[in-house]
Amino acid sequence: MIEKKHLDYFKSVVGDENIYSDKAHLIAYSYDATREHFEPDAVIFPRDEDDISKVLKYCNEHRIVIVPRGAGSGFTGGALPSSGGVVLAMEKHMNKILEIDMKNMVAVVQPGVINMDLQRAVEEVGLFYPPDPASQEYSSIGGNVSENAGGMRAAKYGITKDYVMATRAVLPNGDIIKAGKRTIKDVAGYNISGILIASEGTLAVLSEITLRLIPKPKMTKTAMGIFNSVSDAMNAVYKTMASGVTPVAMEFLDNLTIRAVEQTFKKGLPVDAGALLVTDVDGNLEDDLDFQLAVIEKVFKENGCYEFRIAKDKKEAGDLWFARRNASPALSVYGSKKLNEDVTVPRSALPELLEKFYAIADKYNVKIPCFGHTGDGNVHTNVMVDGKDPEQVKIAYQAIEEVFQATVDLGGTLSGEHGIGLAKAPYMSMAFTPEEMALFKSIKMAFDPNNILNPAKMGLS
Amino acid sequence: MIEKKHLDYFKSVVGDENIYSDKAHLIAYSYDATREHFEPDAVIFPRDEDDISKVLKYCNEHRIVIVPRGAGSGFTGGALPSSGGVVLAMEKHMNKILEIDMKNMVAVVQPGVINMDLQRAVEEVGLFYPPDPASQEYSSIGGNVSENAGGMRAAKYGITKDYVMATRAVLPNGDIIKAGKRTIKDVAGYNISGILIASEGTLAVLSEITLRLIPKPKMTKTAMGIFNSVSDAMNAVYKTMASGVTPVAMEFLDNLTIRAVEQTFKKGLPVDAGALLVTDVDGNLEDDLDFQLAVIEKVFKENGCYEFRIAKDKKEAGDLWFARRNASPALSVYGSKKLNEDVTVPRSALPELLEKFYAIADKYNVKIPCFGHTGDGNVHTNVMVDGKDPEQVKIAYQAIEEVFQATVDLGGTLSGEHGIGLAKAPYMSMAFTPEEMALFKSIKMAFDPNNILNPAKMGLS
Repeated sequence: MIEKKHLDYFKSVVGDENIYSDKAHLIAYSYDATREHFEPDAVIFPRDEDDISKVLKYCNEHRIVIVPRGAGSGFTGGALPSSGGVVLAMEKHMNKILEIDMKNMVAVVQPGVINMDLQRAVEEVGLFYPPDPASQEYSSIGGNVSENAGGMRAAKYGITKDYVMATRAVLPNGDIIKAGKRTIKDVAGYNISGILIASEGTLAVLSEITLRLIPKPKMTKTAMGIFNSVSDAMNAVYKTMASGVTPVAMEFLDNLTIRAVEQTFKKGLPVDAGALLVTDVDGNLEDDLDFQLAVIEKVFKENGCYEFRIAKDKKEAGDLWFARRNASPALSVYGSKKLNEDVTVPRSALPELLEKFYAIADKYNVKIPCFGHTGDGNVHTNVMVDGKDPEQVKIAYQAIEEVFQATVDLGGTLSGEHGIGLAKAPYMSMAFTPEEMALFKSIKMAFDPNNILNPAKMGLS
Repeated sequence: MIEKKHLDYFKSVVGDENIYSDKAHLIAYSYDATREHFEPDAVIFPRDEDDISKVLKYCNEHRIVIVPRGAGSGFTGGALPSSGGVVLAMEKHMNKILEIDMKNMVAVVQPGVINMDLQRAVEEVGLFYPPDPASQEYSSIGGNVSENAGGMRAAKYGITKDYVMATRAVLPNGDIIKAGKRTIKDVAGYNISGILIASEGTLAVLSEITLRLIPKPKMTKTAMGIFNSVSDAMNAVYKTMASGVTPVAMEFLDNLTIRAVEQTFKKGLPVDAGALLVTDVDGNLEDDLDFQLAVIEKVFKENGCYEFRIAKDKKEAGDLWFARRNASPALSVYGSKKLNEDVTVPRSALPELLEKFYAIADKYNVKIPCFGHTGDGNVHTNVMVDGKDPEQVKIAYQAIEEVFQATVDLGGTLSGEHGIGLAKAPYMSMAFTPEEMALFKSIKMAFDPNNILNPAKMGLS
């Protein structure tokens, strides 16, 4: 429970209409996409950077916990008020595209802007914002930056961090800082934007983000390869990426995922295939796209691809993408509880990683369908069990621990795009040494000496 | 003077042959490319990461200053031992390319590897490391990362930070940490590599760097545009970059620079031109390159370009590049003292920036020839005076201060690629608020609480 005097102060800053402390609203803001829930003591909707500054300064002085929140669509609990305190929600006011600067190919946005709203706005003027997390229709740019969101197009275009040119942010003590410039090069001072990216709202509250845009490629083509085995497909992935052409996306479905989609949607998918790869290429010239597809087809066929389909038009491209886009919900055929991880390895380790995952599935007698962004080594690994059976759920968590260990052993990371938050905090010691964790804690202290900002996330306390 | 017991300890770690403390060698290591000089107390050549760790741990315990040094080719004094202490030189042992991983398109190098040695090694196997600072023949990758070096190809391919996937580093207390992975996506833990890049050796000593490579484009073509005025050329630059094609390089020479090159080398350059732009395009298909050049020619001609030359072969390309590559030394026709800055602005501010620079030149009655990487807004600005005339030198520094102010006023940065070091430290307060400087100092303290690592750089103490 938060003291009334604190609520009164917050109301004096943001106005009565921009703060919730009633039970119904606190429950509404207790969730994110993890299905865990923790009630905050209050929810504040700052109207501007100055509001954020005043609230943070006050909370810092009174040691009140603050949890910044974008769209609440995170998969690891980064926006959950697990230690109570005040949720600072960006969705109501801090949600404007402030500028699209066509001369410099830059967008300036507030943190609450929805990813797809930005994509649409810049594409209307011939520009392109590549990061496209699966949550793009509802996740916010502030959340994307805080988690360093990836997406399908990362194989060619990289991830959120590759597009953040500058940030404005409010430190826990209320100081407003700007970091970076609307320039490609800027090496004056420490790279503060660099450390804020993926810091999961633990170091500062983002108040404005300047993003690099690129010219929108004039055309895209889609193809699908059907493979006998997962191993063949994984070999094809890394050999394609090293071939000299760089597909926009190189997405993967394993046999269990193909079967799940077919069972759910009846689309005539090749249910006996070991794996599917769906790939997009883009560019400004038809000849260039055809060249890229020819190289990909050659590499695929040298690596066990027995059928290669090129979409003739948008409709066919949509058909080829259907299975990939609907993979996640279809997996419920294998169980009501899904432990969905986003491990990532160097691409050449993908064949071995998948073998290890299937061995873990055999060992625990669970299904682990996999799909995902193999073009950048990112596999969505889903341990599926009956959520009503506590024994099965326990087994699933044991399997997940082995999934993480196999990933780390192959030079991979616990998280390619979802972050650590609460969900993966217990596994941080697998991936980082005590010295590395100590450094993280020193950095946290440098920004937030009173530990008021999103505490207990990332395994830091 | 360093105590003999300290030297004895260092010798016990690295061996007698890997430490210098005699006058001649101390003088040799007192310089970098700034022409300033400060003698160290000793120079140590660590043989491996373990040596670095032992030396740092000891220096931390005994409060001995450590200055990491790559090739000593920096323009801002980052590698100068301005507070004395021990120079930790990477050139002798820490200079190996450890691995070129073709499957994942990654290189793993020690910090002392020379940039061009890496470029050549990866190009031999069909890969490409784009960052190409002008110092590429002699600067080291460790220095490039520490300063976040740019180069000619930044307009299309970005700068050093865009290629650093992972680092190993030694903290001032001797702890060895690794940050990042051989993966495109990795969002577990704070982005330590992100903050080490451009930290000028003030936070940790880099011991190993993992770099992203890309497929080597199959072909490059070169063109030059001749413009009536600088303003026309600067408009052409940003309009080209926003046109949908992205040239690799878009380099600029102003009239004073053209005249200096012509006077020095007699190449038949158009000495009445307001400006030249030299541009490269690359790709895998001839048609694609021709398409790009056609777009560039169109935009150039719409913006005051009266002659557009496309090189027919490598020799002609070399001819078109000659003036740009020899611009810097040729400027000595205007004076023996050159104050060379690397300010950078958003590209659309280039026309106004150049106007302001020429107004500053008029005001102080000095010549300020400009050239550089306009494709990314980075202008090498050279205030030229007679170095033997103290009054002229004083005026030059006054002019430089106005150059910086004009840059910052237009949303630009003090340094696009050279860093702050000692040379630009006095100007940090123009670019950063006291709150931002306080944050930098907190971060410095988090890594280096005893301030032993490259102190007094970046205006931090």
